[in-house]
Amino acid sequence: MRAEIITIGDELLIGQVINANQAFIAEKLNTVGIYTERMTTIGDTEHSILESFAAAFTRSDVICVTGGLGPTHDDITKDVVCRFFATHLIMNDDALQKIIDLMERRGVKLSETSRNQALVPFGSTVIPNTAGSAPGFMIEKDGKYFFVMPGVPFEMKAMMEHWIVPFFEKKNIGVIVRHKTFKTTGIAESLLAQEVGPVSGIIGTDGTVTLAFLPNPMGTKMRITVREKSLSAAEEKLGHAESVIRSKVERYIYSSDEKELEDVVGELFRVNHLTLATAESCTGGLIAHRITNVPGSSDYFMRGFIVYSNESKIEELEVPPDLISSRGAVSKEVAVAMAEGARKTAGTSVAISITGIAGPGGGSEEKPVGTAFIGYADTESSFAVKFNFGDHRLRFKDRASQAALELLRRKILKVPVQ
Amino acid sequence: MRAEIITIGDELLIGQVINANQAFIAEKLNTVGIYTERMTTIGDTEHSILESFAAAFTRSDVICVTGGLGPTHDDITKDVVCRFFATHLIMNDDALQKIIDLMERRGVKLSETSRNQALVPFGSTVIPNTAGSAPGFMIEKDGKYFFVMPGVPFEMKAMMEHWIVPFFEKKNIGVIVRHKTFKTTGIAESLLAQEVGPVSGIIGTDGTVTLAFLPNPMGTKMRITVREKSLSAAEEKLGHAESVIRSKVERYIYSSDEKELEDVVGELFRVNHLTLATAESCTGGLIAHRITNVPGSSDYFMRGFIVYSNESKIEELEVPPDLISSRGAVSKEVAVAMAEGARKTAGTSVAISITGIAGPGGGSEEKPVGTAFIGYADTESSFAVKFNFGDHRLRFKDRASQAALELLRRKILKVPVQ
Repeated sequence: MRAEIITIGDELLIGQVINANQAFIAEKLNTVGIYTERMTTIGDTEHSILESFAAAFTRSDVICVTGGLGPTHDDITKDVVCRFFATHLIMNDDALQKIIDLMERRGVKLSETSRNQALVPFGSTVIPNTAGSAPGFMIEKDGKYFFVMPGVPFEMKAMMEHWIVPFFEKKNIGVIVRHKTFKTTGIAESLLAQEVGPVSGIIGTDGTVTLAFLPNPMGTKMRITVREKSLSAAEEKLGHAESVIRSKVERYIYSSDEKELEDVVGELFRVNHLTLATAESCTGGLIAHRITNVPGSSDYFMRGFIVYSNESKIEELEVPPDLISSRGAVSKEVAVAMAEGARKTAGTSVAISITGIAGPGGGSEEKPVGTAFIGYADTESSFAVKFNFGDHRLRFKDRASQAALELLRRKILKVPVQ
Repeated sequence: MRAEIITIGDELLIGQVINANQAFIAEKLNTVGIYTERMTTIGDTEHSILESFAAAFTRSDVICVTGGLGPTHDDITKDVVCRFFATHLIMNDDALQKIIDLMERRGVKLSETSRNQALVPFGSTVIPNTAGSAPGFMIEKDGKYFFVMPGVPFEMKAMMEHWIVPFFEKKNIGVIVRHKTFKTTGIAESLLAQEVGPVSGIIGTDGTVTLAFLPNPMGTKMRITVREKSLSAAEEKLGHAESVIRSKVERYIYSSDEKELEDVVGELFRVNHLTLATAESCTGGLIAHRITNVPGSSDYFMRGFIVYSNESKIEELEVPPDLISSRGAVSKEVAVAMAEGARKTAGTSVAISITGIAGPGGGSEEKPVGTAFIGYADTESSFAVKFNFGDHRLRFKDRASQAALELLRRKILKVPVQ
């Protein structure tokens, strides 16, 4: 079944509010085999609402509309729905009683505008609002389903989860959609695509399996989508595609669910009974910040050093002053000394360090802005790896922290770090 | 001028990604008097892209398209643009050179797919990509402007800010929209609104000036918007509204441009010739991370301690062990000792510290999750302030870092810290 989402509201068109409703609706519809093909955002004007309704009703089987159900003068959605379906509004007693109760609880007098929120189109099925006052409704016509919900996110979400999704689950539409997303980092999108190889062998030619590469500064996600008639067929195909892709690029995949890299690394420290210290120069605390975003990280993360000045590198981490003067503060040797010093001082099993040039100043021909060395030390060895994270300061820090965490992941899993 | 935004990408239709691009584009177009009337999201299929292009080109004067410019097989936007405008792709030498340079800097081999990112429709004007590889482009036809940009947010944003907005500013469409945003923190939205008082005296009644309160976990923004026919009228009205609001709530305003609090605090350290050290427990490095997001922060930020374990508080900051056992690691006394210890060890003029319970575990009846003490020490005095930042771990860290930076700002400016 093909769906279309129509969001109504002037506040969205001036960019004041980011439209997160449509992603939520699409995701929920997806779980019951309804595939959203179009999302449209329009203002509170009759002409554009009518035009969108007409186009959607021609193209799609399921139409979800949010917004414009509120009590103020610019909320015209219900009137336009009545005009489109050639019907009229009637008072819904259950919805009215809910509004009366709600106003009483809040100690507010019931006004005419509040009452009018309980009006619904004649011939529609009411979707109760468990989280607010204005009810939603469904109109079934010509085998198509037309849903109207409030724009308030938690009211809409409750209707999706407790009414619309169960409604379609009972209907059993016969299309099962399943996704699997692999998160990778430390490899460029184009190289990853190359290592995965021709996708035809994985996805077949019947269009039931698709593979998408989604790059961002922190890495590239690979998303497999399967559309099948039965759950068993969908899961079999997804499993096959998963294992083929894993066999080719397993070592780059740090997560096959929505986990962050710091969650994955934290879990590795926990199960391997390792402890961690950090020594950061150019990332200024970001690596430790990400590590400590994980609940319970105090079990394995002991302490961190932010050694911005040369003195602090020498005093806190016992980096030899002549190493800094001979090799430079941004050097492989200093990165190794920082990691070793942090591990020794903190008494941990592992330490990670970084020294680099985040810019905009401080670059040279030999070591341009973006240059960084990530150091690693454990009970057996220490080393450092050279990187270039580009010349945008904040992205430099993001990418550097990601590379440092990825280095920890690969090292613990004994995957080549480069 | 009427605009329409078309976003292309399957990942949006399954709800995996929230579409924040369209709000950004709408907001930027607004500043040059272009009003968005419709936003459409569609998948990477030729049919729906062509259909959307055709409808948009009939309805609107400005069409902004994002997405589907990447190097992989599912990126078909450019081919469809060529079909729609009956043109073909040609290699753009500047864009190609940029890609070659980028790949060289990253030490990655130039692949055929990377090269193809530099292809643009014949007859289009290239919009350089200052933040990535794939160029954008503009096609001008029948008095209409058709823009195509990558879907990667920061690449799109750079193109909007540095190319498309200036392009329309030069055109001078005849409506001048000017905004001023005051950023505040450390005061609740309702109290701020109360201190500002009745807005009618500020904004007048003709609707050309509006004031909006926009709260978020880091504080409340106040945005003044002026719509006028001439630049001088707009600037005069904006200046008046600004000065009235400033006269009422100046001390809560840390920025009247888009500066972050860490930029403002950094500037205060710089002009007052102060130096800073940080000692963080529950924020895990976030305060230092934010301070070091500012270019040139190495001039005043010397070093930071992330003292997650009790041992590290004792060893690194000389917090007396009996203070931890008698008062608890999360206490006013330990916060003060941490700040004093950090200042002494780092030899700075100022130190800030924090100890708290970010959760989800570790709370007690006396000190529930969310409790935190922020400590401060300078050459003359030291103290700590108690806060509660709520029980959501990541928001706790964000809000705690904001409160610590605000405490530094107020202390330096001699504004009461509470």
